[in-house]
Amino acid sequence: MVEDRYSKGLKNLEKIHPEASKALMENLKDIAPDLGRYVVEFPYGRDGLDLKSREIATVAALTALGDTKPELKDHIKGALNVGCKRQEIIEIIIQMAVYAGFPRAINGINAAKEVFEELDKK
Amino acid sequence: MVEDRYSKGLKNLEKIHPEASKALMENLKDIAPDLGRYVVEFPYGRDGLDLKSREIATVAALTALGDTKPELKDHIKGALNVGCKRQEIIEIIIQMAVYAGFPRAINGINAAKEVFEELDKK
Amino acid sequence: MVEDRYSKGLKNLEKIHPEASKALMENLKDIAPDLGRYVVEFPYGRDGLDLKSREIATVAALTALGDTKPELKDHIKGALNVGCKRQEIIEIIIQMAVYAGFPRAINGINAAKEVFEELDKK
Amino acid sequence: MVEDRYSKGLKNLEKIHPEASKALMENLKDIAPDLGRYVVEFPYGRDGLDLKSREIATVAALTALGDTKPELKDHIKGALNVGCKRQEIIEIIIQMAVYAGFPRAINGINAAKEVFEELDKK
Amino acid sequence: MVEDRYSKGLKNLEKIHPEASKALMENLKDIAPDLGRYVVEFPYGRDGLDLKSREIATVAALTALGDTKPELKDHIKGALNVGCKRQEIIEIIIQMAVYAGFPRAINGINAAKEVFEELDKK
Amino acid sequence: MVEDRYSKGLKNLEKIHPEASKALMENLKDIAPDLGRYVVEFPYGRDGLDLKSREIATVAALTALGDTKPELKDHIKGALNVGCKRQEIIEIIIQMAVYAGFPRAINGINAAKEVFEELDKK
Repeated sequence: MVEDRYSKGLKNLEKIHPEASKALMENLKDIAPDLGRYVVEFPYGRDGLDLKSREIATVAALTALGDTKPELKDHIKGALNVGCKRQEIIEIIIQMAVYAGFPRAINGINAAKEVFEELDKK
Repeated sequence: MVEDRYSKGLKNLEKIHPEASKALMENLKDIAPDLGRYVVEFPYGRDGLDLKSREIATVAALTALGDTKPELKDHIKGALNVGCKRQEIIEIIIQMAVYAGFPRAINGINAAKEVFEELDKK
Repeated sequence: MVEDRYSKGLKNLEKIHPEASKALMENLKDIAPDLGRYVVEFPYGRDGLDLKSREIATVAALTALGDTKPELKDHIKGALNVGCKRQEIIEIIIQMAVYAGFPRAINGINAAKEVFEELDKK
Repeated sequence: MVEDRYSKGLKNLEKIHPEASKALMENLKDIAPDLGRYVVEFPYGRDGLDLKSREIATVAALTALGDTKPELKDHIKGALNVGCKRQEIIEIIIQMAVYAGFPRAINGINAAKEVFEELDKK
Repeated sequence: MVEDRYSKGLKNLEKIHPEASKALMENLKDIAPDLGRYVVEFPYGRDGLDLKSREIATVAALTALGDTKPELKDHIKGALNVGCKRQEIIEIIIQMAVYAGFPRAINGINAAKEVFEELDKK
Repeated sequence: MVEDRYSKGLKNLEKIHPEASKALMENLKDIAPDLGRYVVEFPYGRDGLDLKSREIATVAALTALGDTKPELKDHIKGALNVGCKRQEIIEIIIQMAVYAGFPRAINGINAAKEVFEELDKK
C-alpha cells in the first residue's frame, strides 16, 4: 500500500512538474535520499482533492510564507501544468495581499512574472 | 466602478459567509469602518478566479500562517458554503503539513473539526 | 556604564508600563532572573529615539508578528502611557493590514479594544 | 470620497518615496493595476497618524517580518524623506532585536547601511 | 524497510512521550489516519541523531515559531523524558530570545512553567 | 559580574566561530557597537547548557525561521566547531521539515551543502 502511494505520487509529480521533481531528487540523493520519498509520497500520493486545487493551495501558502521563492516558482509552473491559467495564478497571489500583506503579494507577483518570462522564452 | 466592486464584493461575501461578514462589519463599525470596505471590496470584488478556488487559497494560507484561528474557522465555513466538501478541506489542511509543518496542520485539523461539530449541532 | 543603562532602562519602563514590567520581573524571578535585566537594559536603556516612537515601532512589530497577544496588549498600554492617542494606536494597527495582512490587523484591533475597555472600567 | 482618499494617498506617497511608488505602479501596470490603487489609497490616504509615525511603524514591521528586503529598503528611504534621522532608523531596527530576534535586526541594519551608502554616492 | 522505520518510530515515541502520541493518533484516527503514520515514521524513525538532541532541536523550533503552544508543551515533556534537565530546557528557550525575540522566549518560559507545575502535581 | 559574562561569552564565541564573530563586531562597530556586546554576552555568556546543545538549538531555530540564511550558515559552521558531525546537522535540518515545512528544510540542506563545500575547498 505504501508502494502504491509512492507510485501514485510519482505519477502525479510527473504531471505537475517533471523537471523540478527530478532536480529535487538529484539534489537530495547524497544527503537525504529518504526525504525525497516523503516529498513524493506524502503530498502527491493522496486522494480526496484534485491536483489543480492542491497547486492552488500550495501557491497560496508559499506566497504567504514569503521566504521560499525557489519553491514558489516551481509550484507556479506546477499550477500551470495542471490547468491553472496565468490570470488565475495572479489572482491567487493578489488574494494573499489580504491575508499575508502586500509586500509578500508583490514579491509573489514578481516570482510569477519571472516564471512567465522564462516560459515565453522557450 | 469602485461602487461596482463594492457591491460585487458584498454579493460574494453573502455567498461565502453572511454571518461572519456581518459580525466583522459590526466589530469594525466604531473603530475603523473603512477597513470593512476594503475587506469587502478588495478580495471579494475581483474577477479572474472562482470563489471556491479563492476559499481554497485562503484556507491554505491561514493554516500556514498558524496564528489566526478565528479567521481560519470563518473561511473553513466559507469554503463549505461555496462548494468545498469536508474531505477536500481536510486535504487542503493536510497538504499544509508539507509546506508549513505538522503542528500547524494538526492545529488546522482541530479547527476544522470544531467547525464540523458546530455545523452538525445545528 | 552598564549600571547607567540599567537604571535608565528602569526609569523608562516606569514611564511606559510600571505594572507590566513588575509582573514580568516577578514572573522571571525564579526561572531566569537575568532575562529581566536584559529586557530592562537593552531596549529601554538606549538613546537616539524618543519613547513614543519606540512604542509605535513595538506595537507595529507585535501586531505584524501576530502570535504574541499578551505582549501586544502591554505595549498598547505602554504607547498610551508615553503619549500616543487611542486613534493613533488604531492607525498603527490598521497600517499593519498592508504589511502583515488583514487577519493580524483585525486581531490587533481586538487587542486594542480590550485594552481600551479595561482602562475605561477603571 | 474614494477619489479624495486616492489623491491624498498619491500626495503622501509623493512625499514619502516618489521613485519607489512610480516603480511599483509600473511593475503592477500590466499584471494587476488595481493593486496599485489599493497600495496608494489604503495605507497612505488615511488621517489620524502623521507620516513620520507611519514610516516608523512600517520600518519596524518590515524588519520584524524579515523576508521583504526590497520593501524594507524603500521604506527606510521613505522614513528619511518624511523626517527620520539615520540614527533614529538604526534605533528602530535595533529595537526589533528584542521583538523579532537579532538575525532580523542585523539583516535590517545591513539593509539600512546599503540605503545610506546609495544615498551618499548620489 | 518502511515497516522497520515505522516500528522504530513507534518505539522512540514510546520513550519520548507515550501519552501525547496516543492522544495524537486518537485525534487523527477518523479524519486523517495516515497523517499519524508519517508523524511516527518520518521524524522518529530516523538514525543519525540521538533522541535528546532531536528534542532540543524541536523545543527550539517550536519556541521560535511561537504559535504552536500545545505542541511545544508536549515536546518540553518529551525532552524531559529523554534526559533533558529542567534548567537545560529553560536555557534552550532563553537562547531563542536571541534568534526569535523576547516575547516568544517569555511565552516559551511560561509554557515550560506550566509543564513543570503539571508534573509536580502528579 | 557583567564583565564575567562578557569575557565568558567571548571565550565561547572563540570556540564556536571566531571568524563570524569578528566579522559581526566589525560590521556593527560604527553603527551599533553595543549590539555586539549583547550578542556576545547574552547568548554565549550563560551557564546551564553545553555549547553543542546551544548550537543544535540555534541551527534548528534558524532553519525553522527560514529567512536568515547568512546566520544559518554561520551557525552550521559553529555547530561543526563545537563537535556536531555533518550527518547530525543534516538530521537536525531534516527534523525541521516536520515542524516548519519541507521548503525551509530543503533550503536549510542547501545552506549546509554550501558550508560543507566551502570547508572542503580549504
